[in-house]
Amino acid sequence: RKKQQPHISTNTLTSVVDGLKKIYFEKIRPLEDVYKFGHFYSPLLNASDFEAKPSVLLLGQYSTGKTTFIKHLLERDYPGCHIGPEPTTDRFVVVMSGHEERRTPGNTIVVQPDKPYQGLSIFGHGFLSRFESAECSARLLDEITLVDTPGVLSGEKQRIERSYDFIGVCGWFASRCDLILLLFDPYKLDISDEFKQVISSLKGHDDKVRVVLNKADQVGQQQLMRVYGALMWSLGKVFKSPEVCRVYIGSFNAGRSINEENNPHGVELFRKEQEDLLHDLLEIPQRSCDRKVNEFVKRVRAAKIHILLMGHLRKQLPNVFGKGRAQDKVLAHLPEHFNAVRMEHHLPAGDFPDVNRFREILQTFDLASFPKLDKKMIKTVEDALAIDIPDLIKMFHNPYE
Amino acid sequence: RKKQQPHISTNTLTSVVDGLKKIYFEKIRPLEDVYKFGHFYSPLLNASDFEAKPSVLLLGQYSTGKTTFIKHLLERDYPGCHIGPEPTTDRFVVVMSGHEERRTPGNTIVVQPDKPYQGLSIFGHGFLSRFESAECSARLLDEITLVDTPGVLSGEKQRIERSYDFIGVCGWFASRCDLILLLFDPYKLDISDEFKQVISSLKGHDDKVRVVLNKADQVGQQQLMRVYGALMWSLGKVFKSPEVCRVYIGSFNAGRSINEENNPHGVELFRKEQEDLLHDLLEIPQRSCDRKVNEFVKRVRAAKIHILLMGHLRKQLPNVFGKGRAQDKVLAHLPEHFNAVRMEHHLPAGDFPDVNRFREILQTFDLASFPKLDKKMIKTVEDALAIDIPDLIKMFHNPYE
Ligand SMILES: Nc1ncnc2c1ncn2[C@@H]1O[C@H](COP(=O)(O)OP(=O)(O)OP(=O)(O)O)[C@@H](O)[C@H]1O
Ligand SMILES: Nc1ncnc2c1ncn2[C@@H]1O[C@H](COP(=O)(O)OP(=O)(O)OP(=O)(O)O)[C@@H](O)[C@H]1O
Ligand SMILES: [Mg+2]
Ligand SMILES: [Mg+2]
Repeated sequence: RKKQQPHISTNTLTSVVDGLKKIYFEKIRPLEDVYKFGHFYSPLLNASDFEAKPSVLLLGQYSTGKTTFIKHLLERDYPGCHIGPEPTTDRFVVVMSGHEERRTPGNTIVVQPDKPYQGLSIFGHGFLSRFESAECSARLLDEITLVDTPGVLSGEKQRIERSYDFIGVCGWFASRCDLILLLFDPYKLDISDEFKQVISSLKGHDDKVRVVLNKADQVGQQQLMRVYGALMWSLGKVFKSPEVCRVYIGSFNAGRSINEENNPHGVELFRKEQEDLLHDLLEIPQRSCDRKVNEFVKRVRAAKIHILLMGHLRKQLPNVFGKGRAQDKVLAHLPEHFNAVRMEHHLPAGDFPDVNRFREILQTFDLASFPKLDKKMIKTVEDALAIDIPDLIKMFHNPYE
Repeated sequence: RKKQQPHISTNTLTSVVDGLKKIYFEKIRPLEDVYKFGHFYSPLLNASDFEAKPSVLLLGQYSTGKTTFIKHLLERDYPGCHIGPEPTTDRFVVVMSGHEERRTPGNTIVVQPDKPYQGLSIFGHGFLSRFESAECSARLLDEITLVDTPGVLSGEKQRIERSYDFIGVCGWFASRCDLILLLFDPYKLDISDEFKQVISSLKGHDDKVRVVLNKADQVGQQQLMRVYGALMWSLGKVFKSPEVCRVYIGSFNAGRSINEENNPHGVELFRKEQEDLLHDLLEIPQRSCDRKVNEFVKRVRAAKIHILLMGHLRKQLPNVFGKGRAQDKVLAHLPEHFNAVRMEHHLPAGDFPDVNRFREILQTFDLASFPKLDKKMIKTVEDALAIDIPDLIKMFHNPYE
């Protein structure tokens, strides 16, 4: 390897996650709870939300080599893995680290609070019977979870026969994973209607998408250029962004070496590209860590504003009588109150929640039931932002300091 | 060269053109003239319309190597050719065969009836001062005329400063040439607004467009893939068709050999691609010949229907008085008359001209001034279609028979 692998150790990652958890559970969550932040922003977090490993989602037409790619990365089969030229993988499989080899059916996974898959239950039984997890031990799985998927179909008819919302499920995984690999091979270049829908369900996650032109060693040099050109031509039409998707050209064939016969001149390219892709994968924990910290900071800043707002609004209520009418008045003048809080604490307007949505949710509560704002609460949140999180980041960027 | 060059000799081409001219001037043109076909369809043809050599239009950003490409093909400079890294070619140059080396300014070319450029006068003096022809002798020019162009610009400001309708001129050449080469180089990939407009002016001629990724030897293997991918990505967005444009990847550097330093693995590819492109160019006369015969057959079939229609309509006029009123009646019932001719001669409805346009033009003539239809006239046209043209095609497809 030419490049120094910059990936952080699992230990560092674990300690950052532990640090975030500590700040959250000791300082932030109690305050969130007092002012029902979970109802206004997003549900209160559980340990599993912090601990979820970074994950990689594999998507592509059937037989483009998704399962083989996983085998290639793990240097082993995962429990229940099937490889073959016809459509083989018939379900979503989360391949994760485990001491024992084990397959767990979907209905069981989604009720486990220590796994980040509870949200999948909304896709119903039709999906859950097509969902499972496969645990086994492999070096890479210590750091990353891989998501194998059934091939995207090309025929309208077959598509309609799916017993669940395939596009929806892809979107669910896409928004929660750290990298999305779209696999193509020289004989499966066309982007079917279903594939187009899958790609449009990735919208907003364009930065996570990488394309793999797999089995590139199966064609000659000139033909590879044709194939690659045709792929980029149609991807350019499907992806709206002017920035080009990173495409890796190679052959990830689980233990078998690159076929040098068709295109001896390509071998070096394929090697470099495969190396770059592995490098990209190994960077995921680092990026995932950055992302976790980033998301956490965002949440704490939102929580701070929420607490300030609720404290300010609570203060508007009279001490003895007429709280109900006062609440109505408060709700009616919400924009002014938002403004007052913004001015008093010098906060950016863009960080405030949407007034109307906030009003709608607040209506369902009795404002008088919230406690008055304690100065100490604000200090806690501000300390978290000004001291605790920066300390954590420092440690994480300079693990040897 | 691996492939047998299938290009037909200049002699065959000349003899096909001569054959077409003979049929046209001896048999068809006199009839066209009698019934004013030129006013209804397209102007009567001159010898220069038959003789115009097939031509290739080169388009691309400045400094992508258009002029160098021409030098590469001709293995010599053309008179007035300038090559340099800054925007150099500042005009449209038709590079054509000539015994003496000569440059002719635009205003002079467009008045020469033996050159197919009279139509360019509509672009006015602003353009004509930026247009010239360069004659010199080179093997390839015996068969093809090349059109060098000023680089497409990227800045809005520069574009506005052009003293003529650049897009319009590109469109004019595009509709009349046999092949359009779009040149890019690894450092000039972006498709500017002007370039986008140029490309959209090529609409309807997509089958003539080829893309050249020139100077491909200036970057390494992996970078070339990035560059090529980015090019296809943006071309896919600009061209509306799902069919991929043929892209030739190579370096056409006028006598200098391919630089092997950056990408030794690419050299073989570049050689093959350059060979394919030359092959594509050498096929032009053949295709141009097919196209000429095809256009000619279309014209003769249209002329036949025109003659039948005019003869039929002329017959509706009374012999002595009231011709004027009779013409009005004929014009009012044109669709019925069209139908009658169609039924009588078993002609496809799709081959008939637009009734309204036909009526408009016919109104400007005195129907009585046309002669009555002579059976011999019909026989002449039918013989041309059934005997003369097929004989010519036979000779042309089997030149040794
Ligand atoms: N890099 C490769 N080179 C050559 N053959 C390959 C490569 N990767 C996979 N294959 C072959 O392609 C076929 C399909 O592979 P695989 O089952 O991994 O595809 P898949 O994308 O998982 O398909 P499905 O969507 O049906 O699960 C198998 O026969 C496999 O051996
Ligand atoms: N295949 C090639 N490899 C390396 N350099 C090249 C190649 N082709 C052209 N060049 C160099 O690129 C520069 C521009 O070439 P040239 O003048 O032919 O471009 P052009 O497209 O005609 O530009 P313009 O639109 O300004 O007329 C010159 O310096 C030339 O030597
Ligand atoms: Mg599979
Ligand atoms: Mg030039």
